[in-house]
Amino acid sequence: MPTHDEMVRVVERYVEAFDHNDPEMVVALFAADGTVEDPVGTPAHKGTEAIRAFYTRSMKSTPKLTLEGPVRTAADFAAFAFSVRLNFGGEKKIDVIDTFRFNEEGKVVEMRAYFSPQNMQGFD
Amino acid sequence: MPTHDEMVRVVERYVEAFDHNDPEMVVALFAADGTVEDPVGTPAHKGTEAIRAFYTRSMKSTPKLTLEGPVRTAADFAAFAFSVRLNFGGEKKIDVIDTFRFNEEGKVVEMRAYFSPQNMQGFD
Repeated sequence: MPTHDEMVRVVERYVEAFDHNDPEMVVALFAADGTVEDPVGTPAHKGTEAIRAFYTRSMKSTPKLTLEGPVRTAADFAAFAFSVRLNFGGEKKIDVIDTFRFNEEGKVVEMRAYFSPQNMQGFD
Repeated sequence: MPTHDEMVRVVERYVEAFDHNDPEMVVALFAADGTVEDPVGTPAHKGTEAIRAFYTRSMKSTPKLTLEGPVRTAADFAAFAFSVRLNFGGEKKIDVIDTFRFNEEGKVVEMRAYFSPQNMQGFD
């Protein structure tokens, strides 16, 4: 099982991938059979190709992530609060909490994103 | 399904219950068959009696909760970052993220708490 510090580092790499607008940096963090449920309640994207397609699409709006407080870990999970700012058309901001579940190799096997329209500002 | 605002109100009541050091206020937020996994990776407390016993024990150290940023919701879930401060023997602080899953009646059916020893300060 990855350590606290290893899980935190993966979260930091995830944030950096958005700074670089580099979907492959994100793909590299996931297990080949990983799932992405973003937001929670929508169908999961499963496997490398689906995850690549999802993040390639997501990064078209050049979102930038800012961690809001320390990364929490528990067993094989990390949970972290962050805000997303989108570049197009002024100040758009989304408040999100993600959870990552890790496998023994320290790859993300399950990502879940918690946010709703009420967590979005500047979209009207 | 409860609305965003209804789920946020339950989270606020949860925080207030700790302000009042009142386990019954917490118990009232949970469904009769609700589960509490605190922290994630430990055996869940299931059902009203187990939940009451857990929170009665937890409140012995008079923890006070402070929300850190807005409550996020998605489908039937709320996720929220907070810090816990404990009264005994100086400044002890734990950074936590909780998720609540709700039933149709707006009661919490599943609580999961994400934190590890690395999220604790002042305990040595």
